[in-house]
Amino acid sequence: MESCQPHHHHDAEVEAIPDGALRFECMCSAGGSLQAVDEVRWMESHPDLIFPAVPFPSKHVFAATGTDALRGLVRRHHDRLKATVVGALFPDDPRMFAMAVEKAADFVVEACGGPELFTPVHGPMRMRIRHFPVSIDEHAREVWLRELLASFDDVGFPEPVREEYWNWMEPFSIRMITRRTTREQPRRHPYAGAAASLAQATTAVGDA
Amino acid sequence: MESCQPHHHHDAEVEAIPDGALRFECMCSAGGSLQAVDEVRWMESHPDLIFPAVPFPSKHVFAATGTDALRGLVRRHHDRLKATVVGALFPDDPRMFAMAVEKAADFVVEACGGPELFTPVHGPMRMRIRHFPVSIDEHAREVWLRELLASFDDVGFPEPVREEYWNWMEPFSIRMITRRTTREQPRRHPYAGAAASLAQATTAVGDA
Repeated sequence: MESCQPHHHHDAEVEAIPDGALRFECMCSAGGSLQAVDEVRWMESHPDLIFPAVPFPSKHVFAATGTDALRGLVRRHHDRLKATVVGALFPDDPRMFAMAVEKAADFVVEACGGPELFTPVHGPMRMRIRHFPVSIDEHAREVWLRELLASFDDVGFPEPVREEYWNWMEPFSIRMITRRTTREQPRRHPYAGAAASLAQATTAVGDA
Repeated sequence: MESCQPHHHHDAEVEAIPDGALRFECMCSAGGSLQAVDEVRWMESHPDLIFPAVPFPSKHVFAATGTDALRGLVRRHHDRLKATVVGALFPDDPRMFAMAVEKAADFVVEACGGPELFTPVHGPMRMRIRHFPVSIDEHAREVWLRELLASFDDVGFPEPVREEYWNWMEPFSIRMITRRTTREQPRRHPYAGAAASLAQATTAVGDA
């Protein structure tokens, strides 16, 4: 399939440090000194960003909402984003912006159990690959999530499926991060308490 | 220490997918379909970028080179970078550019076993954190490496320690990547064959 490439993530391998080699302790350790010694010192391998598991929605989400409610949520969400730092990541041209929003809505409708509006037109999901042209950092993700949560109320999104929808988008959005600005893993925002944790997270950086 | 923070990479944990849960197969699998089914489907966790182990140089590198040869290498390398896409990542102002180069040279001298020029002035290494303000993608890393390799010849860097120096910088440079543009792990460029593999890698993207 189109999305299956050589050196795909399944192939990720970590090289071994030779037996008996000196270790260059992480700078967290008191032993870490930059200055070289007699032997080569090995700094250990570790992953940077770890994508958490993502629970994709059941078709009960579509059953409880329908095409219009899902499209309305996506449109309201993007209207809100325009007033934030995330808005600058979208096309300036209003028609191009609208096309991006409708494409996102097509994706959401299909992923929630509605008509197949996305795949027949755009091909396999490949959501991370689709976001590579855009520089999306950890803060942009949290602003995006904050505005999604507020949009639930704005459009009166059905209460019984808000949490299932959130549990999908909250970890899935981590896979759209293309620009790292911190060593920490992205903060998690469970549905219970998300409004407060996102307000705190996004205010700390000074975004309006 | 200053570099040790909450949610540091040591704390990275991967959540478990519930027992018996449906799996949302990777799109590589023939089973992957975006459209929702009766149950929630879990897409598996995986790391994005994996930092390989890094062999920091022994003090034999300084013994074979000395302060002037190491500083000369770093200066020549950065002169070369100015003519590439990587040059745009540095300050425009010539004095600011020169300060960045001399700081890098201080780091290299100390890390190779020379005088402690870096740590007493700038504090712990924290090289990834220092690069967070700059958007450095996989291609920029390969251009950086290509110009380093060419600089060995330009300055007549002592042959016996070229490979040890390269074996340090080649994996270490992966930790400076802050902007991801591909799902694949960054390409590795072992010293033997690096000139050819880097020429091929950087030409493919069309960088002069």
